[in-house]
Order: sequence, then C-alpha cells, then structure tokens
Amino acid sequence: MTIASRAELLRFTVEVARDAGAIALKYFRTAMPVTNKSTTSRFDPVTEADREVERLIRRRIEAAYPAHGIVGEEEASRAGDGIHQWVIDPIDGTRAFISGIPLWGILLGLQIRNECILGALHQPFLGETFTGVRDGKATFENAAGLQTIRTRQTTDLADAILYSTHPSIFGQQNDLDRFHKVAGHCRLMRYGGDCYLYGLLAAGHIDLVIEGGLAPYDIIPLIPIIEAAGGVVSNWEGGSAIGGGRIVAAATPELHQAALSLLV
Amino acid sequence: MTIASRAELLRFTVEVARDAGAIALKYFRTAMPVTNKSTTSRFDPVTEADREVERLIRRRIEAAYPAHGIVGEEEASRAGDGIHQWVIDPIDGTRAFISGIPLWGILLGLQIRNECILGALHQPFLGETFTGVRDGKATFENAAGLQTIRTRQTTDLADAILYSTHPSIFGQQNDLDRFHKVAGHCRLMRYGGDCYLYGLLAAGHIDLVIEGGLAPYDIIPLIPIIEAAGGVVSNWEGGSAIGGGRIVAAATPELHQAALSLLV
Repeated sequence: MTIASRAELLRFTVEVARDAGAIALKYFRTAMPVTNKSTTSRFDPVTEADREVERLIRRRIEAAYPAHGIVGEEEASRAGDGIHQWVIDPIDGTRAFISGIPLWGILLGLQIRNECILGALHQPFLGETFTGVRDGKATFENAAGLQTIRTRQTTDLADAILYSTHPSIFGQQNDLDRFHKVAGHCRLMRYGGDCYLYGLLAAGHIDLVIEGGLAPYDIIPLIPIIEAAGGVVSNWEGGSAIGGGRIVAAATPELHQAALSLLV
Repeated sequence: MTIASRAELLRFTVEVARDAGAIALKYFRTAMPVTNKSTTSRFDPVTEADREVERLIRRRIEAAYPAHGIVGEEEASRAGDGIHQWVIDPIDGTRAFISGIPLWGILLGLQIRNECILGALHQPFLGETFTGVRDGKATFENAAGLQTIRTRQTTDLADAILYSTHPSIFGQQNDLDRFHKVAGHCRLMRYGGDCYLYGLLAAGHIDLVIEGGLAPYDIIPLIPIIEAAGGVVSNWEGGSAIGGGRIVAAATPELHQAALSLLV
C-alpha cells in the first residue's frame, strides 16, 4: 500500500460520503416514516434515508473495489478479499436526524488487515467533512476551504470539556456512575452530538468524548481522524477501540490516561 | 400599536440580530478566553463575544428607540418609558458556543406592557433566523428563503420527541425526576440544544421542550415564536412563561396538557 494509493482511496471515500450526504439531505427535516428496528421495547429508529444512503455507498464500493469486503449498519456483511474492509455507518445519529438537529453524520472508513487506515465523517447540512489517514494528517473541509486539524493540548481534566451522546448509552448504572465520576473532574460536561463529537475533538473544540454501547461501525471510521489529529481513542480498558462498546477519546495521551484511571 | 409598526419593529429586530450574529461568528470556533462569572463553584461561562454582542444590540436599540427600556443578560437594565422593553440574550447556549456546537443563538424580543409581542432567534453559523409576532405568524429564514412555520400536530406523549438542554438545569432531583416521568412516556428524549430547541419545536421537527432554571431573557424572546407557530409555552404550573424558571413548551395544547399533568 503506497502513499499514493492511500490518497486515491481517501479521495474516493470523501467523494462517496458527499454523494451519500446529498441523499440524506433530501430526507432531513421532512416528514419521514420512522421504523422501530428494535426487537425489544427500546426505540431504535431507522429511516429510509439510512437504507438508501447505505445502498448508494455499497454500490459505489462494489463498482470501484469489487474485491473489498463491506460491513454496514443496515445490510449483511460482504466478505471480500479478507484484507480490505469498508465500514459504513450510513447515518450516525439517527435520533438527531429525525429531530432536525444537524449533528449527525455519514461515516465511511477503510480497514486493511483489521486496522483502520483512513476514515471520513461528512455532515452535509453543515457542508463539513472531517478526514484522517493513519500515519498521515487529519483535515477539516467546508465552504471556506480545507485545513489540517489538531486536537487541543489539554492535559488536565480540570480544563477539559467532556461530551457524550446521551446518558442511556452507558446501558448499566455502574457505567453511568463512572462517567459521572470523570465528569465531576471536568470543566464542563454536556450531552448530544453522536459522531460529530469526535470531529469536534479532532478539530480542537472539545477535549474528551466518553460513550458506551457503540457498534464497531460507530467508531472505526473515526479512529484515523482522531489519531491523525493527535488524539487518543481506546475502549475503557485502554485496548483497541475497533470492537466498539465503551469508548474514551481524548485530545492528548495525558488526558486519556487521566480519564481511563477514573473509568476502571 | 398598528400592524405596520409591528412589521417595522420586526424588520429592525431581525436586522440587529443578524448584525450581532456576525460579531459572535468572529469568536466561534476560535481559541477564546472564557470567564467564570459564577460566584459559586458552578461553572457559568461568559465570553467576550457575549459582552460585545450585547453592547452592539444595546447601542442599536438606543439609537433607534431611545425611549425604550432594555433588559439583557450581561449588563444592567435600562428603565425606559415603562411600556416598551427589549429583552436580549446575546448568546443563549454559551456552553455550546465554547464547545464548537452550532446550536446556540442570539435572542431578541420586544415586550409591550409586559407582553412579548415579537421575538427573533438567530443562529449565524447555520444562517438561520426564526421569528414570531403575537397574533401574527412565525417564520423561518435561511439561504433557501423565508417560510411560515407551524408546530407538528402531535397530541400524544407516545408520539412525541422531547428535548431538554441538560439534566443539571433542573436544579433539584425532584424536578429531574418529574422530567424523567414525562420522558418515560415519550417516543424519544434527548439532551442538548438550548434556545435552538424552541426553534425546532416551532418549525415542526420536535414536539416538546421541558427545562428548568431559565432566566426571563432565556425564554421571553422565544414565546411569540412558539405561540405564533401554534405551540403552547408556560411554566410547570401552567402560568405565564415570562418569569423563566421551569418551562414546558409543546407543539399542541393537548400535548402541553399531557406534559403538565405529569410535571405537577
């Protein structure tokens, strides 16, 4: 895998995420049918937008890279060559999406031999795209242009702005209590944001994101963005984030360690 | 007060809110000093942006309507003629503002004899303005144009999307428990959004906003927007919302009553 081919893969990723964004935007802030895909009583919304976005992304990957595998939120996985695997979250933040809040995003990442080498987060309503390439750089692009982004150099919890999507994502009370323990040491804790929070972290606007109950596709495309910007992301045990579950992302290694020590 | 003069006052309100928005945008997503204006240990951020925005709005009101009174978040009140009183929240959602989240807003409303007759919510990063005129209409304007907005016709809590800014705004545990009781009957509850939530409610994207601890300037400019769109807003006792405090805003009278009955 040469540098040039990573650049080509990144261009493809951004182009597909943006085309997917145009589809999602057709549905955003319109009256749309919402299906509860949960088999329990929990409300787990999925919209036709989620499905149509994932279909478009899959078609584009299959056309451009027919040997590659694909994992997405809405459809069955496609095995592929066992080396390259695309990871799709067609609309991360469906609850925000159906509420008219423009902090959802389209996530697309590429794993090579189980390591996520590049990823993109696209928010079409804001016209913003965050990208990251492993061992390369993280970028933010909007109508004003493209810029390299870096996390903030916050090392103490007392200076940190902490975000999480919602208290219910921690699942069990014990995990929410641990989150609150970290929050109690931070300058500010707020809820709301989904994938967009990791973009804000990478771009140096907030310092810490702590969540639970994530699926692998919720976090894998974001890993290269966070890491290339200088941040650190892991599960609450300090291991790889690629399995999803309980995730902590921090602006610096020091802050990450400080949060981890309270989450154990 | 004729219809024509209300239209003129509304034009002035929107123009000033937008000019104020341009100032706030200069600070948004930049490294900015944040002062803790709380006299207790609670973090209550205020930025130079809040102060500069309020100064501009006050100057413009004083020049255009020198007899009118002014109440704002950051400076002392100005008594005026005892009839007309402008109400300013220069940046509602300062915590979102300092976190790079584009859901804060500039609030500007006009009370005549203690009744808010028109108000505007402007979000300059999104380029969106919500307005409402008592006994008139509510509008939403962005780059795509101006449109009249209406609340959604949701009458049952089971169909409702409920939002609130943050669990800590309820102050006491008892109030948070009551909020959770309502949330337990709703289709979906999420946190985050500040004043922007009332705009989403007026525009028919969400159905219910329940908060506590609001100042009068946090809610007064929003009242004509909510009401002109067909919604209902009151305190938790069902009385006028103009005093701030514990607020419930709903898309329909039926939904408002259903929420109130669980908040008492």
